[in-house]
Amino acid sequence: MRAALMYGAGDVRVGDVADPGLKEPTDALVRITTACICGSDLHPYHSMSASGGPVRMGHEFIGVVEETGSEVSTVRKGDLVIAPFAYSDGTCEYCRAGLQTSCVHGGFWAVNGVDGGQGEAARVPLADGTLVRLPVGADDALIPSLLTLSDVLGTGHHAAVRGGVRRGSTVTVIGDGAVGLLAVLAAKRLGAEQIVLMGRHTARTDLGREFGATDVVAERGGEGIEKVRESTGGGSEIVLEAVGLRPAYEQAYGVVRPGGTISRVGVPQYEEAPVGFGSLFGGNVTLTGGPAPARAYIGEYLPDILEGRIEPGRVFDRTVDLDRVAEGYRAMDAREALKVLVRP
Amino acid sequence: MRAALMYGAGDVRVGDVADPGLKEPTDALVRITTACICGSDLHPYHSMSASGGPVRMGHEFIGVVEETGSEVSTVRKGDLVIAPFAYSDGTCEYCRAGLQTSCVHGGFWAVNGVDGGQGEAARVPLADGTLVRLPVGADDALIPSLLTLSDVLGTGHHAAVRGGVRRGSTVTVIGDGAVGLLAVLAAKRLGAEQIVLMGRHTARTDLGREFGATDVVAERGGEGIEKVRESTGGGSEIVLEAVGLRPAYEQAYGVVRPGGTISRVGVPQYEEAPVGFGSLFGGNVTLTGGPAPARAYIGEYLPDILEGRIEPGRVFDRTVDLDRVAEGYRAMDAREALKVLVRP
Repeated sequence: MRAALMYGAGDVRVGDVADPGLKEPTDALVRITTACICGSDLHPYHSMSASGGPVRMGHEFIGVVEETGSEVSTVRKGDLVIAPFAYSDGTCEYCRAGLQTSCVHGGFWAVNGVDGGQGEAARVPLADGTLVRLPVGADDALIPSLLTLSDVLGTGHHAAVRGGVRRGSTVTVIGDGAVGLLAVLAAKRLGAEQIVLMGRHTARTDLGREFGATDVVAERGGEGIEKVRESTGGGSEIVLEAVGLRPAYEQAYGVVRPGGTISRVGVPQYEEAPVGFGSLFGGNVTLTGGPAPARAYIGEYLPDILEGRIEPGRVFDRTVDLDRVAEGYRAMDAREALKVLVRP
Repeated sequence: MRAALMYGAGDVRVGDVADPGLKEPTDALVRITTACICGSDLHPYHSMSASGGPVRMGHEFIGVVEETGSEVSTVRKGDLVIAPFAYSDGTCEYCRAGLQTSCVHGGFWAVNGVDGGQGEAARVPLADGTLVRLPVGADDALIPSLLTLSDVLGTGHHAAVRGGVRRGSTVTVIGDGAVGLLAVLAAKRLGAEQIVLMGRHTARTDLGREFGATDVVAERGGEGIEKVRESTGGGSEIVLEAVGLRPAYEQAYGVVRPGGTISRVGVPQYEEAPVGFGSLFGGNVTLTGGPAPARAYIGEYLPDILEGRIEPGRVFDRTVDLDRVAEGYRAMDAREALKVLVRP
């Protein structure tokens, strides 16, 4: 079958890979109908060494079940299903606690011999714990919104939940990518009163305003920090960091209020960072967040999308065929596209 | 008057300093009757450059009010009072929220021209917000326990509160100093079911067991991590870090369970540390804590001490006169003494 392959920084091509098939009785085989490119796919697009490639790509997809293993009971042939960005057994203590990204038998797409989402099909391990059936057709107008449940909506929601957003909260969101904008939507949905969005791409921050941002700060660095501290009356109670680069982390502890919380969901492209008296400790600032258990949030958000109360799919502003996936990467990297849908 | 002065690493002497007097109408003048040496005083004792000295020392004291400014209304001449390790106005938004260490008008003892606690007397700024009257005499047998309210008990409690300890929690405490042992006491008081104390000084860990530790792990590094992960069934839900050195931080993220919380109260002797995918982010670990608002916890703990339900004063195992304070530092540094009471 055809699938996206990354050969090194800036080099994505579509190539032939082995057709997937069932390996375990808990597997399902899914023919992918809609996939997309993630902001986090741009990290290797910037830095991947050619000696490591080619690698499979993609971790967000909707598709039709073609075949199921003998132990799969919750989905069957013909079902339209969505996969979150991590697969999980649904039964271990972490899954039961709603932290499926720490599932003891789980893992991530496109690594360790598992298929990626940017391709024609995928073997889905632990199908019962991983997949959720969607009560619509594969071409439904809601598909873009539903696809955000695989990652960016759940990730934005996770930022807000871990950050402790509740009715009346003051929240600052760092980053105007799809996750940042959906963190705005999630914070609004949880009742935040003031939502400051830090971003400087007007088309995106305009969408952020529609999702619920009350203030937009385009400045960065010290100037941006000053503006946020001013508009929040001395610092933001909750900061949602949706970028993953170190300057965004520094922005976060710059704008947070003493006693406040920084919730990170952008995959950190750094290992060490300031955590001492001058950054987190002195002001009793809490640092939280991590890979979102998107699976845990699908059930909660599904009715909101199906009944049209939210339209997270508006983050998609371009669609490419799988054969032109490289063009999608280029457009997102150049910030010409916010988020790109891929049709296999 | 006489006061402890640190001239550089390993060099503490008692010298003459200016007699304190009222400067502001919100000040009180307190004749110190009992003070002590803190584990955090050992940080400069290890590393202070002689070019920075001499500096005043001490931030924990009980004493008798000698004089009050015209605006002071809650304490008066003759009252026995305790001061927490930070002074605060008691009225700003942070004080009202119980985060007195971030008071907008507050500060710390022994810096910026403010007196230290290891001396004969102190000018207390913002006396109404800072001091709490004690309903006992200056020589009462409860004085050592009451003195822990100025810092180490409040700090141990803060670790537990920020860590989210509640009935049934599994908690690991890193450090067998006074704060670590009182973090054990606080965790027990909040209902923790399993309390693993990491420390290798048997006399201290024995006291820790009396305070509520259910397990003691003497090993450090990888071996210590392995032991804690084993005894907690895969990692500790809550980790209270009561040391402040980087190896203790590394121990903390080594033993914490996915989705768990590390609460730090040992003043970090490092600014940068691991926070990326491999340490905090990947397992959705929360990092919290900071300087304890000891003032906020005095009222809550006072009845427990006055009525004999807890005996936090057992952390004091030596007493020195102010003139021999250097001996107290030496004994604590050599780990011959756990915590040293100082009688001016």
